[in-house]
Amino acid sequence: MRDAIAHAGCDALLVTRLVNIRWLTGFTGSAALLLVMPEDLIFVSDGRYGEQARDQLSAAGVVATIEIELSMAAQRDVLRAHARSIQRLALEADGVTWAQQRAFAAEWFPDAELVPTEGLIDRERQVKDDGEIARITLAAAIADESLAAILPMLRLRPTEQAFALELDTEIRRRGAEGTSFETIVGSGPNGAKPHARPGSRVIGEGDLVVVDFGAKVDGYCSDMTRTFSIGEPSSTHARMLAVVGEAQRAGVAAVRAGVAVSAVDAAARDVIAAAGWGDAFTHPTGHALGLEIHEHPRVASTVDHTLVVGNVVTVEPGVYLPDHGGVRIEDTVLVTSDGCQPLTHAPKLTVI
Amino acid sequence: MRDAIAHAGCDALLVTRLVNIRWLTGFTGSAALLLVMPEDLIFVSDGRYGEQARDQLSAAGVVATIEIELSMAAQRDVLRAHARSIQRLALEADGVTWAQQRAFAAEWFPDAELVPTEGLIDRERQVKDDGEIARITLAAAIADESLAAILPMLRLRPTEQAFALELDTEIRRRGAEGTSFETIVGSGPNGAKPHARPGSRVIGEGDLVVVDFGAKVDGYCSDMTRTFSIGEPSSTHARMLAVVGEAQRAGVAAVRAGVAVSAVDAAARDVIAAAGWGDAFTHPTGHALGLEIHEHPRVASTVDHTLVVGNVVTVEPGVYLPDHGGVRIEDTVLVTSDGCQPLTHAPKLTVI
Repeated sequence: MRDAIAHAGCDALLVTRLVNIRWLTGFTGSAALLLVMPEDLIFVSDGRYGEQARDQLSAAGVVATIEIELSMAAQRDVLRAHARSIQRLALEADGVTWAQQRAFAAEWFPDAELVPTEGLIDRERQVKDDGEIARITLAAAIADESLAAILPMLRLRPTEQAFALELDTEIRRRGAEGTSFETIVGSGPNGAKPHARPGSRVIGEGDLVVVDFGAKVDGYCSDMTRTFSIGEPSSTHARMLAVVGEAQRAGVAAVRAGVAVSAVDAAARDVIAAAGWGDAFTHPTGHALGLEIHEHPRVASTVDHTLVVGNVVTVEPGVYLPDHGGVRIEDTVLVTSDGCQPLTHAPKLTVI
Repeated sequence: MRDAIAHAGCDALLVTRLVNIRWLTGFTGSAALLLVMPEDLIFVSDGRYGEQARDQLSAAGVVATIEIELSMAAQRDVLRAHARSIQRLALEADGVTWAQQRAFAAEWFPDAELVPTEGLIDRERQVKDDGEIARITLAAAIADESLAAILPMLRLRPTEQAFALELDTEIRRRGAEGTSFETIVGSGPNGAKPHARPGSRVIGEGDLVVVDFGAKVDGYCSDMTRTFSIGEPSSTHARMLAVVGEAQRAGVAAVRAGVAVSAVDAAARDVIAAAGWGDAFTHPTGHALGLEIHEHPRVASTVDHTLVVGNVVTVEPGVYLPDHGGVRIEDTVLVTSDGCQPLTHAPKLTVI
C-alpha cells in the first residue's frame, strides 16, 4: 500500500471506506478511520469499538496506534495532530463523501493538500490471496449444499418469501455468517425483473423461478444463480433455458488470465444476440466479488480490464421477457493461467 | 421538497442517496438517480430496473419521467439534456462521493454551479407520518413477538450464533422482510463489546446476554435491546441491571416534544454516572430511525436538536465492564406532545 501511496505522489492516505479498513486491518466494526503514513498506522474509532479494535488488529498482526475518541471533534483533533507533517494527503475519492472532503479540507487537515485517488486499495483487492480464495470457496460450497438441501421444497408450492427464508436459514445453519446479499427469488412474471425481491407469490406449475443468492464466510461472498422450471417447460421457456445455458458456458469458457473482461461479456452476449434476445439481456455479464458482493472489475463491454490470475468473477447472463418470465444462470469462478476454476457447483438441472 | 430546494437558493436537486430516492418515489432498487426540478421529476436507472421502477413509482402515485439507460455515459447524457436550464444544482453533500461530485462538475453538469446541501431530505424524513409510524409499530410488534417465542431457547445453552439465527428466522416467519441490522448477541465477556457479532460461544450459567435486534417491515426498522441473566445474577450483575434499567426509564421519561435530545442523553447518563460507571457508558443514548436504522437526530450530548411530535428515537443506555460483561436496555419510542409512546414492549424481565 505504501508504495502505491508514494506512487500517487502522496505522503499518506486516509482510508474512509470501512471495507478497505477491514481488508487492511481485520476490523469489522461500523465506524473507523485509518491513516496510513510512511512510518505509522493510525486507527481511530469510537467508544463502542475500543476492545474490538484492539482484539481484531492484534489477531490480524497489524501494528497500529489505536485512538479511541467518543466525539468526531476529538477524532478530528487526534488525527490532525498525527497528520501535522503531511503535505499531500490522498483520499479515496469514491469512498469519501463530498461533505467529508469539505470538512477534511477546512477543519481536519487545513494545511495539507487533499488528493483525490481512485482504486488505490481496491486494485490491490482484485487479486485474491489463498486465504481469501479459501473463504470464497467455503462460502460457495455452503451455498451449493444449502440449495441442494432445500430444493425439494420447491415441489410443495411455497411462496417466494418462504423459499427464500428457508434458503437463507439453511445457509446460516451450515455455518455461514449470513447471505452475501438479499436473496432473489423471482417466479413467473417476477422473474422478468432481474433483481426481484421475494414476495408473497406462490410458486406454481409452469413457472420459471430465478434463484440468485450467496453465502458469506468471514466477510467473503459467494454468488450463484440457478433457474428452475416447475414442471415441463413450455417451448419458449425451454429455449430460454437452452440459450442462457449456452451463453453461460460460452462466458465461462472465455475466462482466462490475459483475456479482456469485454471479451468474456461478448462471448456470452453473442449467444443471446444470435438467438434474437439481445435486447432482453439487460445487464452486464458479471462482476468481481470478495469482501463486497460487487467489486471491480465488472465483466462488461465498456470495462477496460484484462483478467489476471487470482481475480474472482461471476458469469451470469440472463434473458428477461415480461410475458414469459426470466432465466439467469450464474457461477462464481476463479481466474487461472489456463482458464478458470468454478467455485459454485450446483447442478444446472432445471426441471423440478 | 421543492420549497426546501428553492429556499437553498437552487433550481433543482440531484438526489443520489438511494434511501432518499426510495422515500420520495417508492423505488427500492440498488441504482438510481433522481433529478427534482421545479416542474418535472426525472428518474434514471439501468436496465435491471425498468419494469420495477415503472411499477413502484406508479404504485406510489409518483409522476416522473423515467429514463432507463444501460451505461453511465448514457445516463449522463440524458440527465445533462434534462438539466440544460439549471444554473444552481443542489447535491446531497453527505450522500454523494467526492468522485461523483467531481464527475458531475466536469462532465455531467459543466454549466451548472453545484451547491453542497446537507439534510434537505433527511430533515423532512425526521417527522414520520401515519403510514411510516404504522410500519415501525408493526416491525416493533413482530420483534416483540419473535423474542417472546424463542426466549425459552436461552435455557438450552445455545451458542450466540444459534440463538441469533433462530431470532432472525422467527422475525421473518412472522412476516417481516428481514432484520433491520445484524442481530447482536453478546454473552459473558462478549457483552462488554457494545456491537458484538454473534459467535460460537455457548451461552451459559452466570452470563449476562445482550440481545440487540430489530425487524424491518416495508423498509421501516424497529430497534430493541434486552439483557438477560442466565441464572441468578451476581451482585455486580444485579447492580448493572438495576442501574441501566433506571437510566433507561429516566431517559424515556425525559422524552417529549420540545425537549432537547441532549437533555434526554443527560437524563440517562446522569443515573449511570451517579453509580460510578460514567466511563463505562461509551456511546450516545440513542438515535432516530425509520427507513434507516440510524437516522438523525442522534440522542447525544453534542447534538443540537429539539424533539418534535413524530420523531421516532431509541433510548438505549448501557454499561460495559470487561471483567463482568455488558448490560444495555433499549426501546424505540414515538415522540408525542406530552411524552412518548414506546413502540417496543417486550418485558424487561432479566433472569432466565
